[in-house]
Amino acid sequence: MPGNSFGQVFRITTWGESHGPALGVVIDGCPPRIPLREEDIQVELDRRRPGKSLVESPRKEPDRVEILSGVFEGLTTGCPISLIIYNKDARPGAYDHLKDVFRPGHGDITYYRKYGHRDHRGGGRSSGRETAARVAAGAVAQKILDLSGIKVIAYTLALGGVRARRKDLSFIYQNPLFCPDPEALPAMEARVAEVRAQGDSIGGVVEIIAQGVPAGLGEPVFDKLDAELARALMSIGAIKGVEIGSGFAAAEMLGSEHNDPITPEGFRSNHAGGILAGISNGDEIICRVAVKPIPSIAQEQDTIDIHGTPRKITVGGRHDASAIPRIVPVCQAMVRLVLADHLLRQRAIEGWI
Amino acid sequence: MPGNSFGQVFRITTWGESHGPALGVVIDGCPPRIPLREEDIQVELDRRRPGKSLVESPRKEPDRVEILSGVFEGLTTGCPISLIIYNKDARPGAYDHLKDVFRPGHGDITYYRKYGHRDHRGGGRSSGRETAARVAAGAVAQKILDLSGIKVIAYTLALGGVRARRKDLSFIYQNPLFCPDPEALPAMEARVAEVRAQGDSIGGVVEIIAQGVPAGLGEPVFDKLDAELARALMSIGAIKGVEIGSGFAAAEMLGSEHNDPITPEGFRSNHAGGILAGISNGDEIICRVAVKPIPSIAQEQDTIDIHGTPRKITVGGRHDASAIPRIVPVCQAMVRLVLADHLLRQRAIEGWI
Amino acid sequence: MPGNSFGQVFRITTWGESHGPALGVVIDGCPPRIPLREEDIQVELDRRRPGKSLVESPRKEPDRVEILSGVFEGLTTGCPISLIIYNKDARPGAYDHLKDVFRPGHGDITYYRKYGHRDHRGGGRSSGRETAARVAAGAVAQKILDLSGIKVIAYTLALGGVRARRKDLSFIYQNPLFCPDPEALPAMEARVAEVRAQGDSIGGVVEIIAQGVPAGLGEPVFDKLDAELARALMSIGAIKGVEIGSGFAAAEMLGSEHNDPITPEGFRSNHAGGILAGISNGDEIICRVAVKPIPSIAQEQDTIDIHGTPRKITVGGRHDASAIPRIVPVCQAMVRLVLADHLLRQRAIEGWI
Amino acid sequence: MPGNSFGQVFRITTWGESHGPALGVVIDGCPPRIPLREEDIQVELDRRRPGKSLVESPRKEPDRVEILSGVFEGLTTGCPISLIIYNKDARPGAYDHLKDVFRPGHGDITYYRKYGHRDHRGGGRSSGRETAARVAAGAVAQKILDLSGIKVIAYTLALGGVRARRKDLSFIYQNPLFCPDPEALPAMEARVAEVRAQGDSIGGVVEIIAQGVPAGLGEPVFDKLDAELARALMSIGAIKGVEIGSGFAAAEMLGSEHNDPITPEGFRSNHAGGILAGISNGDEIICRVAVKPIPSIAQEQDTIDIHGTPRKITVGGRHDASAIPRIVPVCQAMVRLVLADHLLRQRAIEGWI
Repeated sequence: MPGNSFGQVFRITTWGESHGPALGVVIDGCPPRIPLREEDIQVELDRRRPGKSLVESPRKEPDRVEILSGVFEGLTTGCPISLIIYNKDARPGAYDHLKDVFRPGHGDITYYRKYGHRDHRGGGRSSGRETAARVAAGAVAQKILDLSGIKVIAYTLALGGVRARRKDLSFIYQNPLFCPDPEALPAMEARVAEVRAQGDSIGGVVEIIAQGVPAGLGEPVFDKLDAELARALMSIGAIKGVEIGSGFAAAEMLGSEHNDPITPEGFRSNHAGGILAGISNGDEIICRVAVKPIPSIAQEQDTIDIHGTPRKITVGGRHDASAIPRIVPVCQAMVRLVLADHLLRQRAIEGWI
Repeated sequence: MPGNSFGQVFRITTWGESHGPALGVVIDGCPPRIPLREEDIQVELDRRRPGKSLVESPRKEPDRVEILSGVFEGLTTGCPISLIIYNKDARPGAYDHLKDVFRPGHGDITYYRKYGHRDHRGGGRSSGRETAARVAAGAVAQKILDLSGIKVIAYTLALGGVRARRKDLSFIYQNPLFCPDPEALPAMEARVAEVRAQGDSIGGVVEIIAQGVPAGLGEPVFDKLDAELARALMSIGAIKGVEIGSGFAAAEMLGSEHNDPITPEGFRSNHAGGILAGISNGDEIICRVAVKPIPSIAQEQDTIDIHGTPRKITVGGRHDASAIPRIVPVCQAMVRLVLADHLLRQRAIEGWI
Repeated sequence: MPGNSFGQVFRITTWGESHGPALGVVIDGCPPRIPLREEDIQVELDRRRPGKSLVESPRKEPDRVEILSGVFEGLTTGCPISLIIYNKDARPGAYDHLKDVFRPGHGDITYYRKYGHRDHRGGGRSSGRETAARVAAGAVAQKILDLSGIKVIAYTLALGGVRARRKDLSFIYQNPLFCPDPEALPAMEARVAEVRAQGDSIGGVVEIIAQGVPAGLGEPVFDKLDAELARALMSIGAIKGVEIGSGFAAAEMLGSEHNDPITPEGFRSNHAGGILAGISNGDEIICRVAVKPIPSIAQEQDTIDIHGTPRKITVGGRHDASAIPRIVPVCQAMVRLVLADHLLRQRAIEGWI
Repeated sequence: MPGNSFGQVFRITTWGESHGPALGVVIDGCPPRIPLREEDIQVELDRRRPGKSLVESPRKEPDRVEILSGVFEGLTTGCPISLIIYNKDARPGAYDHLKDVFRPGHGDITYYRKYGHRDHRGGGRSSGRETAARVAAGAVAQKILDLSGIKVIAYTLALGGVRARRKDLSFIYQNPLFCPDPEALPAMEARVAEVRAQGDSIGGVVEIIAQGVPAGLGEPVFDKLDAELARALMSIGAIKGVEIGSGFAAAEMLGSEHNDPITPEGFRSNHAGGILAGISNGDEIICRVAVKPIPSIAQEQDTIDIHGTPRKITVGGRHDASAIPRIVPVCQAMVRLVLADHLLRQRAIEGWI
């Protein structure tokens, strides 16, 4: 059954496999008369491009996006926007030895059991490459958020146990790890280098904040803003946990500590993470996600093949030591998509009665 | 915009306010010929009924469910099942003093800002009472899961910092805290009593496991099973975080530790929490949620009224010291709803080609 | 799979069988702060109540609607509006002889083949009684249309071959056939009396017009306004055809005749029926539907039972000679629902960029 | 708001403008392991290609479809199928004179009023060219129908007042008008030639039948099979009316005539058109649609420009005299899409309890 669409009013549908001819996204429901150029999207895609740092695999993906519809003379028309990215650096043959064997920690085994037939090349549809389409769509969503002065920022809060202590948002794009703390960066880099040298990989924590979000977004009781953010973020491949505001720390707090006192100037604290009862409260929205270590490692692992026979596997290949540098822009994109959708959803009731 | 429906094939729509005449749910998409009696639903509702223990408020809610449609001669017909629960113990007048003032930590302020008009009595639609409809629907979902031998179990993993160390599933329903650890129970109870005596409240962690789930459930890339579980669970009022499998611990793990080796007998570990690439892998599904302390506390708090004037508020009333005993059955219900929906979604492609 | 919801932004979900305890509708997505009383809905329900004229069966259905949620102090809250109508005059036993035999022209056989189990009493879910919930929801939709000055009018254009020549809209509610032509009325009444005396039934044509609809409603390319109207109207039990504007007459027209010339004052003709390329053009919207004769007739008919054995059946009972007097308000309701939904859908792009 | 998707389980999303770089469709929800080649789709596209006969405009559109995703080694994978057709013969400049003026009978004026900005070239998104994506998707839908032995046939029942009397289904693809009656064909051709010589255009009636449809498809009460067919067909640009079975003739029939008697061998007649109470009854499904004359005519017409100034317009260009030869395959495609979707929807309840 269909599962490749996201959003109710600003709705995206993504398609494409890692080593097929192309991947892309159709955006349906984008309002008309919004300026949009390929460069607006390209700049965001470039941020998730591998090969930027030592953390990541050297695969060269130019990832040039083309707008095929829905934009005329530089403005959106209100009709579906089709974006395409051709897979230039696909090397399908490189995956022949993985055709019949399941890589541990990957979707190989579940895609096989669900569909009975799969494009095994580089993970096919389950590849992280799919997220390029999300980032492209997120760039379009941001054009809508821009109209309301909403800003979404994502960064690496922790990597391999090294935690950013300071949050210098201006530093995020000055380093390939999207680390907001200049002092924590060297330790993060060292940890990644160490793990990489061992043929291993490592996880981390990404934090995403949204500033300028007006009060009122989110649709109780099932399409609450936090529920939608949780779904959006958890739909990214490597993510195993999502927190809003206080998150798991709330489990040990008292009500008198956790409640954010309300003053005429706003909330005195933000344990809510900007969301109360599923609706934005006007404060900064704060999400955190746990990113698991990339399952492709250069060490030998136990697995089975499609016949159930035990096998040893060493994935090797041109892989990243951490998903973080690719996932940060994807998290940002997903939050953008949720907010743009809910900004438009809220318009059905806003300011007209 | 509509936000009160959940599920694609097994779809529920809930309605009702805390102190209106009734609340209920319409279930559309339930297959026909499934035995269903009011008692099947009532037994689940009774589990979330307040007044069972000292932890909870003494409000008496008989919560009698009635089936109004969709069942004929004891079997579902495939037509919408309408369930209603009349609010017998509603005391609307008890909330007059809260009409114009926002309780911190509650949805009062966000409902007001979103809709401009709200039923303030007991939180209206944002009340936890809404979840009775979810539990009722979850009981119907379980009838479908029964056909596939799927069992969903929820329990209190931690309460106010006291953690269950053992998991004795047979003990869960023998104590009002749904604690699976007979040894941890006294400490949990003591912690709750202590907090309650201070007019305060406390959070906790609920774990939900699903056994017998076949491989193949979940619809990449946005309706992945973990993404749907995250949305479902985060849509419950007091929840601030969701984890699948290893959860936030994954952020500090190595790939070589985190990957679950595959053997002919199954996975050797279950960091995945039963889900790989958004699709169930046949192993036990494991979710955890962070529950914030109930915001209604008997201590004075700072807030404002609808005119923006600073106010002091003491919520008092007949409130619980912890949401846990009510939320455990709701978490269970939401996981049941997700699994029933995806079990039916999977049927579109299963075993026919 | 779910099929009992209608609308994207103003979404209704209906439930209930003809002879169950009650039927109803949940309206999700109604904007807040709209005045709504039970009387607003009751007046519309009374229009479709049987027993008003000789044309119809004498079954007495008080059809009292109750608002169970979503309205507080006379105003909608933006939360789901649950409406319920108890079945007061249900006589389930009256249908025992039809339990195992299929009435020709009815859904008995198809419900049985689809679901394998059905509530046979009075047609169960397939009964025309289900449309009471549509009419109730349509009354709420009209409250939204009122805010934009949109008026929806439905009337009997033809009955049993007798066609209304004049359209005196003020006359519609002055006669039980909703006939707009005082001169055609006696012939229509005579035709109905004649058919009724023969134990037979007869079809007709209903026309629905919408005035004051702004240009811009409708969402190409699949949710075009005419496509949505066609679906909405064809979903009513007895309807076999839908036309917009020129309808089937267009099939024999030339382009030079059919095109509506555009002038600064508006369109010079209205073959389009107020819709061009699926979007309202600001002109009056015109739909017509063909209503089949009611299948319940007092004549003996050939059929089979659930075992496939040939049977003779005489349905008899308290049935109408024509569906027209009940269907006119239902057609009106469905057009109201489509327009309210699209009015709100259009708000996502309207007047904000 | 999104309107470019169709279907619940087999869901398509189309995109693209008449003179943009390309158009296409994403199919989400296609079951895996279905053989699919580009040729399977191409053969259907070739049927709607203009330039086949004198009836149509000489525009050359090779309309080569490419599969970009969702198919691996000749079989569908269950992942989204992305199909693209590049616009090879686009001549954007040819439409400069129509930039600011509205062609009567076209969507120019309504797109402008809805969106405020439009791609005017050849109608942009409102062009009939959009239907190429529908035909391509319909070809994939047919692969699913093939598995159940369902056949969908469409033909020209009437053209410019000339009606086919015989239905020789083998003759349909032997003539460019899709006329099933060898004797009526010359009169149809003569009528088209006559109208074309006058610089005018003409309408017609298309009939679509589906054979081999099992009983049980359709989801009451809003997603009834006839309601979905009506929506699907009315969403095609030039269609002004839809009938199922007896259609508008039902309005003048008696119940005793219209009811289809049921026998152990099946229904004795088929006024129902294969659908009872919105569910297929196992008999042949019969739909008819009224096609309006193409609005692009070579005669001078009155209109206005975007400033509201009166203008004279002669559309001229390379246009068809009748939409029929293009619309027949599109009607067929839409019926295929509805049936494939409902075949899969029915699987949620079929044969498992």
